[in-house]
This record gives sequence, C-alpha cells and structure tokens, in this order.
Amino acid sequence: MALIVQKFGGTSVGSIDRIRNVARRCLATAAQGHQVVVIVSAMSGETNRLLKLAHEVTEIPDAREMDVIAATGEQVSAALTALAIQQEGGKARSLLGHQVKILTDGAYSKARIKAIEGSKIFSTHKKGAIAVVAGFQGVDENGDITTLGRGGSDTTAVAVAAAIGADVCEIYTDVDGVYTTDPSVCPEARKIPKISFEEMLELASLGAKVLQIRSVEIAMKYGVPIHVRSSFSDAEGTWVTKEDKSLEEVVVTGVAYDKNEARVVVAGVEDKPGVVAELFGTIAEKNISVDMIIQSPAVGNNGESRTDVAFTVLKTDLPRAKPFIEEVAKSLKAQSVRYDEGIVKVSIVGLGMRSHAGVAAKMFRILAQEGINISAISTSEIKVSCLVADKYTELAVRALHAGFGLSDKA
Amino acid sequence: MALIVQKFGGTSVGSIDRIRNVARRCLATAAQGHQVVVIVSAMSGETNRLLKLAHEVTEIPDAREMDVIAATGEQVSAALTALAIQQEGGKARSLLGHQVKILTDGAYSKARIKAIEGSKIFSTHKKGAIAVVAGFQGVDENGDITTLGRGGSDTTAVAVAAAIGADVCEIYTDVDGVYTTDPSVCPEARKIPKISFEEMLELASLGAKVLQIRSVEIAMKYGVPIHVRSSFSDAEGTWVTKEDKSLEEVVVTGVAYDKNEARVVVAGVEDKPGVVAELFGTIAEKNISVDMIIQSPAVGNNGESRTDVAFTVLKTDLPRAKPFIEEVAKSLKAQSVRYDEGIVKVSIVGLGMRSHAGVAAKMFRILAQEGINISAISTSEIKVSCLVADKYTELAVRALHAGFGLSDKA
Repeated sequence: MALIVQKFGGTSVGSIDRIRNVARRCLATAAQGHQVVVIVSAMSGETNRLLKLAHEVTEIPDAREMDVIAATGEQVSAALTALAIQQEGGKARSLLGHQVKILTDGAYSKARIKAIEGSKIFSTHKKGAIAVVAGFQGVDENGDITTLGRGGSDTTAVAVAAAIGADVCEIYTDVDGVYTTDPSVCPEARKIPKISFEEMLELASLGAKVLQIRSVEIAMKYGVPIHVRSSFSDAEGTWVTKEDKSLEEVVVTGVAYDKNEARVVVAGVEDKPGVVAELFGTIAEKNISVDMIIQSPAVGNNGESRTDVAFTVLKTDLPRAKPFIEEVAKSLKAQSVRYDEGIVKVSIVGLGMRSHAGVAAKMFRILAQEGINISAISTSEIKVSCLVADKYTELAVRALHAGFGLSDKA
Repeated sequence: MALIVQKFGGTSVGSIDRIRNVARRCLATAAQGHQVVVIVSAMSGETNRLLKLAHEVTEIPDAREMDVIAATGEQVSAALTALAIQQEGGKARSLLGHQVKILTDGAYSKARIKAIEGSKIFSTHKKGAIAVVAGFQGVDENGDITTLGRGGSDTTAVAVAAAIGADVCEIYTDVDGVYTTDPSVCPEARKIPKISFEEMLELASLGAKVLQIRSVEIAMKYGVPIHVRSSFSDAEGTWVTKEDKSLEEVVVTGVAYDKNEARVVVAGVEDKPGVVAELFGTIAEKNISVDMIIQSPAVGNNGESRTDVAFTVLKTDLPRAKPFIEEVAKSLKAQSVRYDEGIVKVSIVGLGMRSHAGVAAKMFRILAQEGINISAISTSEIKVSCLVADKYTELAVRALHAGFGLSDKA
C-alpha cells in the first residue's frame, strides 16, 4: 500500500464529465489498495472569470480580497470532485487551505508555503475516505486566505506530498509527460521517461511549461518523486526523481527556449569600478529581475575607456524598467540605450555535461553551422543558454535537438 | 456614534453597479461617524448556479460538500463589496464564516448558530475599516463549512448584531418595509412604520416573506432592533422592535396569507383514546410538520363512534407524507383519506387582540359576508388564521384589510 498524491489541473477538471473521469481515476488507484490524496485546480476558465469580476469593480484590486475571490475556484472544484467520487460509489471529503491547514506567509497572490498540518488528511483516510484538497490556496497566520500564484496547485501537490510523506506525487496534465523539447516546434521531440530534479528545474526555468518551478524546488528539497502524466490515458509519463547513474550518462536531456525576455544594451558607459554595480543595483531595487549579463571589452579612446553593458529582463517588466534604466544610464553618462525584443533564449540541459567536456563548444558549433549569431551566453553546471535572434527559434531548437542525438532515439 | 449592522440581500448585490451602490451607502453611514458591519448575500442567481453544478454531478449531493460549494457565493460577494468600498475611497476587509467566526452546529444546509466570536470584527474596526461579513455561512466545531439555509443572511445579520451589541440591524431589501399585507394582492396595503417582534414573527410564520423567521426569533431574544428598508432609497422603512404602548393600541397590524399548505382529511376513524396521538406521532417521526389540526365531533352509528381528523402539511412535504398517512390511516381503520391542495391560510395579526375582545368573531363575520366558507381555524394570543378555498385569496385578504381599518390610514 502506497500513499499517493494525485494532482489534476484546470483542464482535467474543466467540465463535469472530466471531473467524473478524475473521480474514476482516483477510485481506481484506491481500489489497488493505495491511500489517495487528490489536489485539484479550479475548472479551466474559472480563475479568469473571477479575476475579471474583481477587475470590473476596481482597476487595481486589493490583493487580500483578490485571493478571497480567487480561492473560491478551487473550493468549488474540490467539492465537486468529492461529490463525483461519492457518485461513483466511493467516499471522499473536500479540504480547503484553512482546513488542511496549509500555512503560508502573508504575500497575497504569491504566498509561499511555510508549513502543512497533515492531520486532517490522515483523519480523512482513517474514515476510509479520499481527501480532496483545494489547490493553489492557503491561509496565513492571521487566518487570512492566500493564494500561491499561477500554477500554484502543482506546488500544493508537491508540498502536501512532502508533508505527509507520500510515496509519489502524480501530476496529471493534458500532455503525457516532459518532452525533450516543445513538440510544436520540433516534431522529433520525444517523451523523457526519467529526468533528475536538477534538470527539470533548469528546463522549467528555461521555458518548459509542464511543471511550476517552485513545485520542482520543493520536490528536490524533500526528495518527493514526481510522475508527470496524462489525465486522458494510462500510459507511463515522465518520472522526476533524484539523479542516478543512468541519468548521468545522457549528455543532453532536453532543449528549451524562452521568448519572454528582452535585451537591453546600455552603450558607451565609462569603464570604471562601480559602474555596473550602480546600474544593476538600481534595477534590483525596483524589483526587476535581470537574467543574462554581458559586459563587452572596454574600448579606449582619447584616454577615456568606455564599455557596453547588455542584459536581459522579462518583456513584461520592460515598460516599468525603462524609466529607471534611462535614468541610471544618464547618470552613468552612457552614450545610448537600445532595446531589442526580437530575441529568444535557447538552452540545452543535461546532467552529463558535468562529466563531458566540450558540450558548450559543440552547441556553438551547431548554431554557427546554421548561420545563427549568438549575442549572449550563460552557463551553469548542467545547462548552456544562448541568446539569438527570435526568427531562428525553430531552426536553433531543431538543430540542437538533432545535433545532440535527441531525435535519434525515438 | 452607533454600531450599525447593514445587511444586503442578493438583489442588492446582484450586479457590480449595485455592489457599488451598497459600498456608497455603507460609506455614507460611516461618514456620519458610525461603525459599520456589512453582511452580504450571494449575488442573485449565484447560489442557484452553484447548486445546479452540484446537481449535475449527482442527484442527491452530500450536504457537507453542497455547503462548501454554496458558501463560495457569499465569499465572492463579500470580497467584491470590500473592493467596491476601497474603490470608493474607504477601507474595508471581508470576513468569512470561519474567520469571524460564526460557530454553528453540524446540520449542513440548515445549521443553527451556536456562538459568534466578534473579535475579528472589532479588530477590523480598530484598523479603521468596515467589516464585510459573508452571510449565510458558518463553521462547525470541526472546522467544516456550514450554511444556514435559504434566507440565512438575515439570520447572520441579526446574530452578528446581537453578538457585537449593535444598536440596530438594518435589513436592506427590494421593498421599502413591512406592509400591512401583500401589495400585489391588495393595492391598499400600507407600509407599517413600527411593528413588535411578536407580530413580525407571526407575520413571517404566516406567509409574509420580508424577514426570515429565525432572524426575528434571534432579534426578539436579544432585543436587537431591526430596520427593514429599501436598498434603492433613503426613506425610513419598518422598525421591528420591542412592543410598547403605542403598538398595543392597534388591534390588527397586518393580514397575511399562505398558499403553501395542503389539507389532509382522514375520515371515519374510530373515536377512541390514542387514535389521534398515533396518527400524528407517526407523521412527526418522519419529520413532517403539521400545522392546523381539526377534529370533527364524533358521530355515533350502531354503537360505534367515528370521527374525521383534518390537518395541514406543507405541499412540498405531501408526496413524502402520503405513504405514511395512508399506512397509519389503514391501521386506524379509517374509511377514507382525502387531500386538498386548493386551500389558503388567511391570517390577521395584532398585539391589540390581547386587550380587544371579539376580534376573531369579527374576522369570521367579514369572511361570511363575502360568502367565504371557513374549513379550519387556529388562534394564538395575537393572531387568528382561517383556512379557506384558495380561489378566495384576494377577496378574503382585501375584505379583512378593509374590515379591520387597515385601508383607511394611508
């Protein structure tokens, strides 16, 4: 007998028929003798409907009240799922964030889980019932309702799995697993049977959308195996687990791309100590995240040395960031500021990079062979990212996918 | 400075514009220096939408899960109202049943309030904010969500007012007060400026729909003055208060009618001790309420004495009640059982009846003058009810309204 957490996203509970399907799946697992905890998102479209209501009242709604409204989406789907399990002949009880209880900090709309009290789940199991937990929501120490941000139900699922010591956290979604790259861009993409937490974390950070980054972080921290699989089939999906020998043999596990960043070039700033610190200090103060940073070699002229500083920020942050960037550029006596939104970050990820030399060089060579110019590079122990013009997205992804042998193994 | 509870029903918060209107009204009251607690129902139509969802999953949904679903209606409207108050420049915080907290028994869908912890309301006021409380909902001692039944927001409002020692509980609705009778039946109906708890309780029990019976019971028990008024005007409505000398001078305060009952006649049962007890004992066991009871004089024949027993039950209970009634009628050797759904209960209510003789006789005379036959009578200290054929509803109500001088004082 295993203790299994099963998480179903908005599409999987998007209609009464689909909720019935979820109920049958949970009961099938329970019928195999397992204890089941179900985590559900709001029915697809419901969260948007609720937020729209709030936005009709006021343009910038108070975050506390927004969370009170948004949390009802999961409250309804949890109770409907419990009803569907009962209708199929099972026993089930819904549990909300304040009932479980999922204690978070007070950062409304993006709260972080601090602790989970699992006793309500265990007492539900003792009554022979399946516990259906509302995802996405928690409660702060004042008893105020909080939400975990978009995709927060993944985080609820993994955190609950960690708190109750579940054997596995199954994430049911509308795709059947984690792919070597986005199949809509590269038809040769294959389902990855097994991937390490570290690789999954890099892939999620670099643009793969299957799992929420924070849920992978929690799974890695507490060693909760995640099984990403389709809610519409019984096929095995992708296991996200601790790294082992077999995983290290694969040099590149996946290719990711991210079109959400824009490049900023602050050109011709004085090349003296403290300049870069001042630039990025100012941007960080405004709570704007900077990703890749490239400082060009300084060029001397008339005894004065000048350099270009380039970096990337989220496109959505750009309108807010521009005034600060230009202000600090002015104070640094920069010659010009340029923005480029026509870029994409293409990345390769793999545990095997640690023990295989020349992986980055091979990536650059593959891109060069396709005539793709690289405007920035960033690396970690298990990934290499290159910034290229976004018109090359498909070409770059397919070339890397083929070049690192990912297209062969189908 | 007064402490004022303001309750707004589903129609009053039925759209974003109406919620804004509610917000402005609360702020106007606060601007006069009062502390305000707002109680809101779900937006009109919302509770039905939610219950329909549950019924799509299963025909007879589990009451616990139904309450989890239904409670989201008030959760959303409370937060939207808080947002609207903020948008109008005020401070407000929503509070849910489990936050206030409104402790109830565990009778899902018809829970009774056991206690209200008011400290969250006071701490909200201390922050200079209006407390917006979700009506209709509570939480039992296990932390499970409960609801108080249809119209339960009235009960929430009065119970909260009693718990925090409010000076008045204002019930805002789509009519501008309590009327001497239903204006749609009798155009001469007038708004009653002031009525006693006892009279209001009788009127509510006898068919007037303005206030929920339990809310009046609580108001009477704790002496909370209720002010029933329109959410669309500033006019004074009806004050429901402790009785006083001025109220006792009015013989008849209002005329009510109720078409929700059906008459059952169990004819020709043996007239011996215990027969009636057996009949009504059996019905009561099935949790079916009986209202009026009339036992005809026994008629002897061949040394055997037989009698007819007639009573009324709710029409909605009749399908469920019939099998039990027929079973017990058989065991009592009754000669026949007849059902009559074409009846109406017409009632007059007034504190002054206590000190004025002949009120019932006058009622019978008025009905007789109109040629209306009375098939059953029931009286209390401050009301007289007559059962008549339902085709006479309008005629009876208008004749009584005029006959007791209620049409004159407009």
